[in-house]
Amino acid sequence: MNDDILDFLRQLIAFKSVSSDTSQAENSRKTAEYIKSNLEIIGVHADLMENETKGKNPLVFGKLGEDPEKKTILFYSHYDVQPAEIADGWDTDPFILTEKEDGYVYGRGTDDDKGPIVATIFAIKELVKDHGSLPVNLRILYEGEEESSSGGFEETVLRNKDYFGQVDGIMILDTSWFTDGQPSLDYGFRGITYLGVEIEGPSSDQHSGMVGGTIREPLIDLIYLMSRFVDLEGKVLVDGFYDKVKPLTDEETKLYENLEFSLQEYKDSIGISKVLVEDSTTTLMNMWRNPCLSIHGIEGAFSGAGGKTVVPGKVIGKVSMRLVPDQEPEEITKLFTKFVEAEFKKLHSPNQLTITPLGSGDWWLGNVNNFLFTSGKVALKQYWKIEPSFARSGGSIPIIPFMESTFNAPAIGIGIGQPSDGAHGQNERIRIKNLVGGKEVIKLMLTNIAEQS
Amino acid sequence: MNDDILDFLRQLIAFKSVSSDTSQAENSRKTAEYIKSNLEIIGVHADLMENETKGKNPLVFGKLGEDPEKKTILFYSHYDVQPAEIADGWDTDPFILTEKEDGYVYGRGTDDDKGPIVATIFAIKELVKDHGSLPVNLRILYEGEEESSSGGFEETVLRNKDYFGQVDGIMILDTSWFTDGQPSLDYGFRGITYLGVEIEGPSSDQHSGMVGGTIREPLIDLIYLMSRFVDLEGKVLVDGFYDKVKPLTDEETKLYENLEFSLQEYKDSIGISKVLVEDSTTTLMNMWRNPCLSIHGIEGAFSGAGGKTVVPGKVIGKVSMRLVPDQEPEEITKLFTKFVEAEFKKLHSPNQLTITPLGSGDWWLGNVNNFLFTSGKVALKQYWKIEPSFARSGGSIPIIPFMESTFNAPAIGIGIGQPSDGAHGQNERIRIKNLVGGKEVIKLMLTNIAEQS
Repeated sequence: MNDDILDFLRQLIAFKSVSSDTSQAENSRKTAEYIKSNLEIIGVHADLMENETKGKNPLVFGKLGEDPEKKTILFYSHYDVQPAEIADGWDTDPFILTEKEDGYVYGRGTDDDKGPIVATIFAIKELVKDHGSLPVNLRILYEGEEESSSGGFEETVLRNKDYFGQVDGIMILDTSWFTDGQPSLDYGFRGITYLGVEIEGPSSDQHSGMVGGTIREPLIDLIYLMSRFVDLEGKVLVDGFYDKVKPLTDEETKLYENLEFSLQEYKDSIGISKVLVEDSTTTLMNMWRNPCLSIHGIEGAFSGAGGKTVVPGKVIGKVSMRLVPDQEPEEITKLFTKFVEAEFKKLHSPNQLTITPLGSGDWWLGNVNNFLFTSGKVALKQYWKIEPSFARSGGSIPIIPFMESTFNAPAIGIGIGQPSDGAHGQNERIRIKNLVGGKEVIKLMLTNIAEQS
Repeated sequence: MNDDILDFLRQLIAFKSVSSDTSQAENSRKTAEYIKSNLEIIGVHADLMENETKGKNPLVFGKLGEDPEKKTILFYSHYDVQPAEIADGWDTDPFILTEKEDGYVYGRGTDDDKGPIVATIFAIKELVKDHGSLPVNLRILYEGEEESSSGGFEETVLRNKDYFGQVDGIMILDTSWFTDGQPSLDYGFRGITYLGVEIEGPSSDQHSGMVGGTIREPLIDLIYLMSRFVDLEGKVLVDGFYDKVKPLTDEETKLYENLEFSLQEYKDSIGISKVLVEDSTTTLMNMWRNPCLSIHGIEGAFSGAGGKTVVPGKVIGKVSMRLVPDQEPEEITKLFTKFVEAEFKKLHSPNQLTITPLGSGDWWLGNVNNFLFTSGKVALKQYWKIEPSFARSGGSIPIIPFMESTFNAPAIGIGIGQPSDGAHGQNERIRIKNLVGGKEVIKLMLTNIAEQS
């Protein structure tokens, strides 16, 4: 049985569906076609949907069942992968699935996100084989651009929304367990707004011997400005930034009690000696449910090794804020812009300030009491015999709130692999136990959903 | 007569002696050999001196005359050039000397610094032809690495110091007139110390979704630190920074009175609306005789276009200070390090600070009353019929104070071309009048030196 699963995964891994590398577009298309034909083999009606954004990889849509008595569940995953070269430090060819004695199979996409696709398709196959039909109406929505900001996803889904009909629940298979030892369900991501803060002075880069001491250097203005964005305790200084942040409730606090989180392991994995607040729960809350501001770098300034005596004429600071319920990216962008403009005025600079939004996305917060989470929790416990955790992430997956609102249905994140799988790193892997377990959990969960209805 | 000068310059321009491009090393050697043989043709004993630093271009040494009754004058220039491609925006091939109707010849190195070499060699040739000998003992010291930080220069000169014997004066032919309309003599450069301020936290770059809000970001520490280096009026905040700066004397102030300096033109050339202090003389003093601090950029942070949600693990701020008499680069480096370490302590950060000196060089201040300046001033006035100016530069040429101390002799800078020649830019040029005038001024100046003795 496992041989079939691994054979299918082996074939998927062999396709170099690296979405950031447009020269691999043909491989991405082949991956999509291969998934489509495998869905058809098990009886799912499947289609290759061209991406609405030209040059972006096609999506795979699928459906099985139109029974009005059953709930309709949409599965989301992505078939594209991060780049990988053996020269990056892989022990084996990243595009040849390699089984090792540690019980894991290695290869790019094993965890993120081809393994979960394999688990899903085999779950469907076995349910149909054993029962003649599925306990739910199935919808498939796989994309090939997730590692490249889901390019064209929203446009393509909106244009083809009717394909799916009414949807009752969305299962996101693109996360990992919270820790290696504890299965988990994901109920939240932070939102984000990313901005460029540009200061322009001289019309071109200058030699510091010629202007050093005579002019207001744009980079010094920018550094002054950026030093006022956040205090040393991590508090964002933008006026009104925290106004819409939902207060912590007892119910929410309880979700943190059952988490196997080691602050020491977290610090070790980052390679630091201290976090801002030396407390596990506070650190998790700072990652998951509190907003923050990060500074990523500066465009236009000298960034090479060694020394260069340049006074850059135009510099752009790169800043992002992670957002939480009920902060709206658009409103925070406005508050930030207003704040920075006011701070810049205080500098009385002859230079020009321009603030440019570079992208934003909504936060997502699932309702851990709805049918998806109760069915999922039971399924995980049934299979793994371990109390699962409810986890969030500090990152942002804006397509989840997009799908929730587009389909007017709740979503849930179901991790298949483990956090140590190295999703974007070298020697990405998945435990065979997790692949098989993921398949079984999906089967149990769909059955539970039907029984709850 | 001009045809000979232009033919020689044409040949020199044709050699692609780009020192930053090691694949052009053979062209640099050919340039050096061509200059050597042309020195020999006019009776100068000349030698190709291998650079003490392996892989760096050879120097050209030369001497003519050992008369103990005459002063010994050493000429410094460089035969290497900045890179140039017609694709950079040149109207003509940068390595083919092109004469235009505007009275200028165009080509890479016409102004910086092959034109001055041609003017010097023709001045020597004509003096020898007309008088049978030179009014001074001549020494030649040409290098081929000036545009690449004069690599190997100091070591090669120190090892071969005896070649030159006693030197009485050093003539630096590697500057321009102060303005297009007024010939000038250069009497000063600022010194420099350049440092890297490194803050290290996480052992590798992190995803801002995973650490944003939980850790002290090294880049935010660095921005806090760098915001404390200099105030918005340009005052350097390092304790003790100004202690050794020489006060302004009446004599020095007078040197600024005869300068044809247009603040508006200066601002226009940079493309700014305002300088720190809207006054011509203050701006010149801020450029030439006051020290300053510039921030050049950050290594290790995100520097590309668009957005990237990285929290850099290690960032290095690049900072330099331009120094003036009597600031010592070594002492200022120590004061800066002490200051930054103290400021960093105030941040109570778990991150690590490391300050690395990345290079330094002494300032140079000539004595405008010595025989070089009096001879030069008379020569310029004799030829151009214009009162010349005494100018400094805000940049740094550390080999000038090095040569002054190595040869225990004073130096002077004599500009041949004009500031609008575009020394490092596209369509570099020199006015034929300036090339011929430079030659004549050198002849007059050497004659004046002999007569003054």
